Amino acid sequence: MSTASAGSGGVEVDFAEDNYGDTLFPREIKSALTHLRDIGEQHVDRSVKVRAWIQNARMQGKKMAFVELREEGSWSIQGLVVAGAGTGVSREMVKWVGSLNPESFVSVEATVKRPLGLVKSCRVTNYELHLSKVFCEAPAPDVLGLSLAAANKAATGLDEEEEVVDGMANLTVKELVVPGASLATHISDPVMHKRAPVTQAISDIRMAVRKLFTEYVDTRDFNMFEPPCLIGAASEGGAEVFTLPYFGKTAYLAQSAQFYKQLEIAGGRKRVYSIGPAFRAENSNTRRHLTEFIVMDLETEIESHYHEVMYLLEDLLLYIFRQLEVRCKDQIELVRSVYPSPPFLVPQPGKEVRISFADGQKLLREKGPAEFRNVSDDEDMSTPQEKALGAIIRDKYQTDFYIIDKFPESARPFYAMLDPENPAVTNAFDFFMRGQEVLSGGQRIHHPVVLEDRIRAKGIDPSSLGIKEYLDIFKSAGVPPHGGGGIGLDRVVAWYLALPTVHLAAYYPRTPKRLLP
Amino acid sequence: MSTASAGSGGVEVDFAEDNYGDTLFPREIKSALTHLRDIGEQHVDRSVKVRAWIQNARMQGKKMAFVELREEGSWSIQGLVVAGAGTGVSREMVKWVGSLNPESFVSVEATVKRPLGLVKSCRVTNYELHLSKVFCEAPAPDVLGLSLAAANKAATGLDEEEEVVDGMANLTVKELVVPGASLATHISDPVMHKRAPVTQAISDIRMAVRKLFTEYVDTRDFNMFEPPCLIGAASEGGAEVFTLPYFGKTAYLAQSAQFYKQLEIAGGRKRVYSIGPAFRAENSNTRRHLTEFIVMDLETEIESHYHEVMYLLEDLLLYIFRQLEVRCKDQIELVRSVYPSPPFLVPQPGKEVRISFADGQKLLREKGPAEFRNVSDDEDMSTPQEKALGAIIRDKYQTDFYIIDKFPESARPFYAMLDPENPAVTNAFDFFMRGQEVLSGGQRIHHPVVLEDRIRAKGIDPSSLGIKEYLDIFKSAGVPPHGGGGIGLDRVVAWYLALPTVHLAAYYPRTPKRLLP
Repeated sequence: MSTASAGSGGVEVDFAEDNYGDTLFPREIKSALTHLRDIGEQHVDRSVKVRAWIQNARMQGKKMAFVELREEGSWSIQGLVVAGAGTGVSREMVKWVGSLNPESFVSVEATVKRPLGLVKSCRVTNYELHLSKVFCEAPAPDVLGLSLAAANKAATGLDEEEEVVDGMANLTVKELVVPGASLATHISDPVMHKRAPVTQAISDIRMAVRKLFTEYVDTRDFNMFEPPCLIGAASEGGAEVFTLPYFGKTAYLAQSAQFYKQLEIAGGRKRVYSIGPAFRAENSNTRRHLTEFIVMDLETEIESHYHEVMYLLEDLLLYIFRQLEVRCKDQIELVRSVYPSPPFLVPQPGKEVRISFADGQKLLREKGPAEFRNVSDDEDMSTPQEKALGAIIRDKYQTDFYIIDKFPESARPFYAMLDPENPAVTNAFDFFMRGQEVLSGGQRIHHPVVLEDRIRAKGIDPSSLGIKEYLDIFKSAGVPPHGGGGIGLDRVVAWYLALPTVHLAAYYPRTPKRLLP
Repeated sequence: MSTASAGSGGVEVDFAEDNYGDTLFPREIKSALTHLRDIGEQHVDRSVKVRAWIQNARMQGKKMAFVELREEGSWSIQGLVVAGAGTGVSREMVKWVGSLNPESFVSVEATVKRPLGLVKSCRVTNYELHLSKVFCEAPAPDVLGLSLAAANKAATGLDEEEEVVDGMANLTVKELVVPGASLATHISDPVMHKRAPVTQAISDIRMAVRKLFTEYVDTRDFNMFEPPCLIGAASEGGAEVFTLPYFGKTAYLAQSAQFYKQLEIAGGRKRVYSIGPAFRAENSNTRRHLTEFIVMDLETEIESHYHEVMYLLEDLLLYIFRQLEVRCKDQIELVRSVYPSPPFLVPQPGKEVRISFADGQKLLREKGPAEFRNVSDDEDMSTPQEKALGAIIRDKYQTDFYIIDKFPESARPFYAMLDPENPAVTNAFDFFMRGQEVLSGGQRIHHPVVLEDRIRAKGIDPSSLGIKEYLDIFKSAGVPPHGGGGIGLDRVVAWYLALPTVHLAAYYPRTPKRLLP
C-alpha cells in the first residue's frame, strides 16, 4: 500500500514511478501546503502542495489528463498532467491520473499557472495547476451512492416516514425547482450528503446560532452549567420519556433542563445557561419532530417583573437573527438557492410584536379561517391555529417573529407562576417563528407553599418521585424569584431558513424510525 | 402572600408595616440595584437596593437587629435595622428582621454607611447597610439540612459507595484538615452544596476549561458539530453500553463521539470538535468513574504525520493549564484552601515529556516498585502501573503532565493505525495528569481495505451491526488521513485540582448508585 504502484503493465521502467500512485501514509512533498481559496498572483510559476478531492478526472488524448480538485466545500481548481521527459510525467502517470475516481483524496505537487482562458467549470477561474506529483491517499469507489451534484440539490421524499404533509414553512415539495435524491438517500449516504455545500452551509448557520447565543449570554454575566441526561425521575410526565434499565433500577432521559436550571438558581447563581441534548419519546413522524434535539436554555433571577426575562430572550433572538444576516450571508444565499424561501422578517426596533394569548385568540376569531371562529381563551392553541395566527400577524405587522404572552393556566405545567392580577392566566409565554413555536418560557414558582398548592391543584401527588425532589429544592432554602426559557436550536435553524423539514437542520436526525447513522 | 404581614400580634397599627414582610412578587424599591462587590465611596450616605441571602440575623436588645447579607457566592456585608419614629423602622420590624432564618432571600432598601470599626465577619469590611425596607421573597426552613459553613468544608465519606480507596491524587481522606459533611449529605442537599464558595469555584474552573478549549480550537479553524447520544448500533463493544427500548427496536447511548467525528472528516470538514456527554454502563464504584461524563473531542486531517495531532493536543492542554493559573487564580486558591494539594506541574516550553510506551515500561521495570519488575511491552498498563509511572516521571522531569505514545497493538481498538515501522505498536497515545489518563487519541485507519483487514484481525465480523456502517464511511468515498483525541473534562478538572474524587468535579455526578438529583 505504501509504495507507488505503476499504472502500466509494461516491463520497461516507468521513469515517473516515484511521482504518483496509491499510498496509505502521506508521501513527502516539500512545497508549502496551500489552500485553493488562497491561491493568487504570488503563487504564479511557483510550486505548491495541495490536498484535495478529485471532483472529476478525464484523459485528453494519450498524453494529457485533466482533473478538477476540490477542497473546503466548494473551492475547486483545474489541474492537468502532461506527459514528457522534461516534466517528470510519463504516459503511465497520465493514464493513472485520468482514471482516478471522483471523491478520491489526493495530495499533489503542482506549479500554479495562468490558464489560456477562464476556467468556467471551477470556482478558481484564473489559475490552474500543472501537476508534477499525484498521490492518492484514499480511493473512492467506481460508482458513488450519491454524487456531489445530487447531494447539493434539494432533497425529495421528505415524507418517507409516513407523515402527513403539513404545508409548513410557506413551502411545499411541489415548489422545489430541481428534483434531487430522496432524504432517505441523503441520510443513508452521510459522507456525500455532508460534502454538499448546502449541507455545510446549513451546519455553518446552525453553529453560528449556537455561537451567537453563547456570545450574548457570556457578555451578560450568565454562567454556563451542565444538566445531566440520565435522571432518576421523570418529573415532567411519564408518557413521552425514554426509560432504560440502570443497574437494577430505572433511569430516564431528560426531556428538558428545567429542574436543573432552577436548581442552579437555587444554588446561588444569578443567571445560568446550558446548551445540550433533550429527549422526547413521542411517536410523531412529522417534519417538526425529533426524538433527540438540542436546547439552548437559560434561567435568570427576576429583579422585579418576569417581563425582564421575556425582553431579554426577545433581544437575544433578535441579536441572533440580525447577526446571522451579516455573518452567514453567503451560506443563507446558498441554502436559498437550493431550498427557496422568502426572507425571514424581523420587526424594526421599537416595533416588536408581543400579544397576549387572549388577543391572539381574538385575532384568530376575527381574521382566521372559518374553523377558528370559536376558539377559546382557556385552551391551548393547536398547530394549525398557531400557523393561521402566524399568517395573520405577518400580514398585520410584517414580522415572522413574535411573542404570545399570558398563556392560560390550563395550557401550562404546575410550576408556571400565575398572574397575580388574573389567576386564569400564567406569567408564561411562547416565541414563534413563521407561525411555529421555538421557545417556551416564563416565571416559575419559587415559593414552596405556593408551589405545593399548585402541584395539588394539578392533581399531582407532591410526594411522588421527581415531584418531591423538585419541591425539596424550594423547601431546603430560600430561592429568589426567577424565570427563563428554552430555545429549540433545530427549529430555529429550520424555520429561519424555511427548510421543508427540521430533519435537514440536524447533524444526525433522530426520529422514531431513524437511529443511523 | 403578596402583602406585608406584621410580626407583632398587637392591636395597635404598626407604622412600619409597608416597609417589611413576606411577599411572593418583588415589592417596589426605587433605589438602584447594587451588587455588594461594587459598593464603594460613591455610595456612602446614599440609598441602594440589594437582593441577597440572609447569612445570619440576630437581635441586639429590642430596638436593633443585625443581619449579614450575602450574594454571588461569598460577597457579604453587615446590615442593621434600628427602631425609631424618624427611621421608618418599628420595634415589630426589628423583631421580624432579627428572626429571619439564614438562607432566606430578601430584597432591601438601605443607606450605605461607614461602620464604627471594620466589620471583620463580612467580606465587605468598610461599609455597612442601614436598612429601611426588608422584604422576604423566599423563606428558608428553621433548620438547614446543610449549613453554608459545613457545605464549604471538605466533603468526607467519599467512599460511601463501597469503593476501594485507591490513594489517588496524592491525597487521602486522612490528610484532610477539617472534617465536614459526607459527600452523600452534600449531594442530597444540592442547594446548599452549590451555594458553597468552594463548589462555585470548582464550577468556575470547569467552565473555564471548556471555554479555553473552545477558544483554542475556534482560532484554529475547527468546526463545531453535534454527535448524537441515541445511536442504533454499539460499535465500540456491547458490555459497557446502556441500552433502551426505542419504538420496538433497541437504542444505545453513545460511549464516544468517535464514529461521528470521523464521519464529519469524511464529510469534508478539515477539523472538527464537539463537547458533549458520553455514557458508560460500567458498574465501577470508584472515585474515578462516572456513568455520564463530558468529553471534549476533536478530530483533524493529517497533512503528513500523526504527531501533528499529538502536538496540537499537547499545546491545547498546556494552553488550558497555563491560562487557568491566570484566569482562575482566586478559585484555585479557594479550592486548595478546602482541598489542599500540591500545584500542578507543567513542563517548561521545549521540555515537554513524550515517552514511548516501551520506554515507559522500561522506566517502570527499572525504577518502579518490585511488583512491576517484569511488565511487558505488549500489554496495556494497569491503573497502579500508570500511577507508579506518573510518580517516576514527576521525580525525573518535574511534570504532572506527559504523553505516552505508541501503545501496543493489543491495547488499542481495531481502528488504530499501526506504526508502519513496527506493526506491533500503534500510532496512538494517551495523555496523563498526575499519573492518570485524561486523553486517548491517535491516528485512525482511513483506508477501507486496511480497515477491513484490521477488523478481521481483531476477530470482529465486518458485516456486524455498527461495524458495517463504520466501514461504509470509508468505502463510500475517499477519506483523508486523520486523527484526534477525546479529553475527559471531569477528570481534567479533578486531577488538575487533585480533588479526592471526580464526583466533586461534576455538576450532577452519575454513578451506578446515584441518579438524583
